[in-house]
Amino acid sequence: MEKANPLSWRSKLHNTIYESNTVAGKVFDVALLILIVSSIMVVMLDSIKSYHLRYGRIFYVMEWIFTGMFTLEYILRLISIKRPWRYVLSFFGFIDLLAIIPSYLSIFFGGAQSLLVLRALRLLRVFRIFKLTHFLTEMEFLKTALTTSLKKITIFMLVVLSLVIILGSIMYLVENGENGFISIPDSIYWAIVTITTVGYGDIAPVTPTGKFIASVMMFIGYGIIAVPTGIITTEMAIAVRARKHGHETCPGCGREGHDKDAVFCKFCGTLL
Amino acid sequence: MEKANPLSWRSKLHNTIYESNTVAGKVFDVALLILIVSSIMVVMLDSIKSYHLRYGRIFYVMEWIFTGMFTLEYILRLISIKRPWRYVLSFFGFIDLLAIIPSYLSIFFGGAQSLLVLRALRLLRVFRIFKLTHFLTEMEFLKTALTTSLKKITIFMLVVLSLVIILGSIMYLVENGENGFISIPDSIYWAIVTITTVGYGDIAPVTPTGKFIASVMMFIGYGIIAVPTGIITTEMAIAVRARKHGHETCPGCGREGHDKDAVFCKFCGTLL
Amino acid sequence: MEKANPLSWRSKLHNTIYESNTVAGKVFDVALLILIVSSIMVVMLDSIKSYHLRYGRIFYVMEWIFTGMFTLEYILRLISIKRPWRYVLSFFGFIDLLAIIPSYLSIFFGGAQSLLVLRALRLLRVFRIFKLTHFLTEMEFLKTALTTSLKKITIFMLVVLSLVIILGSIMYLVENGENGFISIPDSIYWAIVTITTVGYGDIAPVTPTGKFIASVMMFIGYGIIAVPTGIITTEMAIAVRARKHGHETCPGCGREGHDKDAVFCKFCGTLL
Amino acid sequence: MEKANPLSWRSKLHNTIYESNTVAGKVFDVALLILIVSSIMVVMLDSIKSYHLRYGRIFYVMEWIFTGMFTLEYILRLISIKRPWRYVLSFFGFIDLLAIIPSYLSIFFGGAQSLLVLRALRLLRVFRIFKLTHFLTEMEFLKTALTTSLKKITIFMLVVLSLVIILGSIMYLVENGENGFISIPDSIYWAIVTITTVGYGDIAPVTPTGKFIASVMMFIGYGIIAVPTGIITTEMAIAVRARKHGHETCPGCGREGHDKDAVFCKFCGTLL
Repeated sequence: MEKANPLSWRSKLHNTIYESNTVAGKVFDVALLILIVSSIMVVMLDSIKSYHLRYGRIFYVMEWIFTGMFTLEYILRLISIKRPWRYVLSFFGFIDLLAIIPSYLSIFFGGAQSLLVLRALRLLRVFRIFKLTHFLTEMEFLKTALTTSLKKITIFMLVVLSLVIILGSIMYLVENGENGFISIPDSIYWAIVTITTVGYGDIAPVTPTGKFIASVMMFIGYGIIAVPTGIITTEMAIAVRARKHGHETCPGCGREGHDKDAVFCKFCGTLL
Repeated sequence: MEKANPLSWRSKLHNTIYESNTVAGKVFDVALLILIVSSIMVVMLDSIKSYHLRYGRIFYVMEWIFTGMFTLEYILRLISIKRPWRYVLSFFGFIDLLAIIPSYLSIFFGGAQSLLVLRALRLLRVFRIFKLTHFLTEMEFLKTALTTSLKKITIFMLVVLSLVIILGSIMYLVENGENGFISIPDSIYWAIVTITTVGYGDIAPVTPTGKFIASVMMFIGYGIIAVPTGIITTEMAIAVRARKHGHETCPGCGREGHDKDAVFCKFCGTLL
Repeated sequence: MEKANPLSWRSKLHNTIYESNTVAGKVFDVALLILIVSSIMVVMLDSIKSYHLRYGRIFYVMEWIFTGMFTLEYILRLISIKRPWRYVLSFFGFIDLLAIIPSYLSIFFGGAQSLLVLRALRLLRVFRIFKLTHFLTEMEFLKTALTTSLKKITIFMLVVLSLVIILGSIMYLVENGENGFISIPDSIYWAIVTITTVGYGDIAPVTPTGKFIASVMMFIGYGIIAVPTGIITTEMAIAVRARKHGHETCPGCGREGHDKDAVFCKFCGTLL
Repeated sequence: MEKANPLSWRSKLHNTIYESNTVAGKVFDVALLILIVSSIMVVMLDSIKSYHLRYGRIFYVMEWIFTGMFTLEYILRLISIKRPWRYVLSFFGFIDLLAIIPSYLSIFFGGAQSLLVLRALRLLRVFRIFKLTHFLTEMEFLKTALTTSLKKITIFMLVVLSLVIILGSIMYLVENGENGFISIPDSIYWAIVTITTVGYGDIAPVTPTGKFIASVMMFIGYGIIAVPTGIITTEMAIAVRARKHGHETCPGCGREGHDKDAVFCKFCGTLL
């Protein structure tokens, strides 16, 4: 933020586009959200064949209008920021670019327009716009719980991955390459569909042995679906307690992390 | 409740219809519950073609009898309450009206009768009737836990919604508008079916890339199904603890964490 | 147990059949378990057509042998217990009778034999046999947690039931009685299949509105599947804590229920 | 580990193969991981018919190269360890052998090569290789929580198993051996598919009674899926607390519940 000359048009533009604490900023955010949702709606409706045939021309024009507006927004973002490259290379800068590139590409390459669906990624901006509302604390909370769970979840996912590869391979042998189990990758796909309890039924065991192994797998899946839940619940409980306990500092040694019922500092014995 | 003249017929009627602490009130509640369940059963059975052909005439008569009784109940509710408009505009007043309107509408419009299924909404009255039983505390408990979780669940659902829109759009491109992925809305529908682990199988990926993306999605769904569970469990644990422990502070040692039924501080023995 | 005359044949028989603290009792239990599993295996295998055609005669003989042995067991149980009627009318007495009745009924009625599958109920005896092992504590624990959760789970199930009736009815209207939604009960069946995330796919929405409502339902199901989990987890955590805390009694007033970190009785202030 | 003569080639080899604290050891581990993944990829791709027809010859050669390298690794492991039999009879020794045996068997028996999929079991080595990273603590944590839950989960699974046998048998009677419920084992398979919420839809109830029982089963499954989650979450919470708090008692006031890093009692300030 340019705090030196707050009245310059650039700093005003910056506040409007990047911040939400002014009326103009809030209007901009809401308008942008409506624009993103509308542009996604048009891409969605255009993908339905009957609509494409009837309104294809209107959708085409609207898409170019949206592209124009998003391009304008992108340029405004570039000129209103001090270090434009930082924005261009940032996560949201990249997504913003992805939202306008396909339209221009479609002039040269026919199919490129279908990449417009990537515009859906802009929906993630919804979280930036919500930034200043009271949802922030809750988001932080969820983020903390998920981040601390990540390591445990990763290990768990690796175990499950090994399991589906092994069980999928066994099913390929058992069902003898038939009944949809036509290759090991397909059998692994089936194993994932089964162990996550999705169960499409596009591939299903037919032989008695296959059904037996599948039953065992379902029980395993039933048991281990509890693991990620347990991990995340535990981390959330810790995060809640941490938030509740407060972060009192010891007057003697200046350290934090005391329990709520502590009377003396656990590190230096000073009365809290 | 009209406490001034408890013997007037209107206050008696009010007590019978709106309260459950008299014998008449309890009889009314149970009779109403039986009536609601019966009327729903009739609508249900009438929707089965073979039954409709054979017993359609009887069902028709019964529906009008139920409508008559519900209309009478509605009128009684109106005249026995002091501020009828307040009841009419209340949630249950609206549902009670919804339960009788379709029958009368069907005199003028043919298809209106099928709206009778809305009578199922009256089942919610079951919770009002249970109001005075010992289920009340548990309901309050569940309501508290769900209300405090709502904000976190909403954010979570928004993330999942963005995810299914993006992943659904990608699958539309990958499966090239074939194998059921005929439009982006359809692909998003599939993504929701997959990530919630419902997995109908009416739409299922066929291409290797599609199957790979679907597998990744299932793993994501497997991991994140834990999040709402974690949120609600944590909130429930807090609600349980809050119910058990008060937040009183001991006047002697200043410490918290006493049980609700505590008379003396558990740390220093001071009278609370 | 007849403690007066422990050497009488009846009390010995009683100990063998009803208790597991003698060698004979343990042998009896294990033999019974093997017998139950074997008899169920025979009923299962006999239900497979190709096996029935080939080994039907052997299975028939074996079933009568099992019936004979179970009948003998039933009689022994009757004569070795002091109050036979109490056993006959008990839960396990009823199941034990159910395991032998169908065979005798089949002499008079042809199809009665297929009721032999009810013999599977005898599997529940496995828990009685495990009674004296170290699984007992864990079973008690699970039972406590489930019993205390029951009220909350019941309310939750009633809400879900109302929800599936209402949503099923709406889907019947939306899909217009087609695409498998041929009646309201069928639509409710579909709603249950969907909200529990089972998702057979035998009935699936076809119209855009139907797919939209189904998507909303899946999200609801996704969110509320967390509720029973939260309830049971919380109750288990309480049960664990209760087990851990011990049930120290105050020397002053004799009351229990003190926290682990309590120094003074919270009821009378006496030093614990 | 041979600590006496650390410079001998055998001890060096041992360190490289069995340990990961040297550069050579880390290189070996990563190389082995790449080799395992590559060999599994080849087996997978070879199982796809179109690839097998085109690249079958190359895959064949590569499989023998992998087999050669794994054989070399096996021999090196044998000669670099003091007690080779201990390795041969260990879990990983057995898996390592399983990874090379099928290739040699295929010289004599045609189909033996398909057993190469068992090579996927070697993926479990990934956890050994991760042994020295910071994932170790998290793995230990998960292992502890799962081990302590095992007894409760086992009982729960036995209950579910009895339930699916009984309900499957009933469904066999209800659906009268039709609509896919052709035998009791098949009906039990369906019951498992349903209660675990997998729901393939390859077998689905058709009769009204069948649909009703299935609906009840889904509700049961919905309720009890919470049980393993509750068990594991509770055990994890205990494990987390145990990790955080020691069970030390303060010498001054005799109270427990101090953090692991505590130096002074938080209640009375005494040095622990």
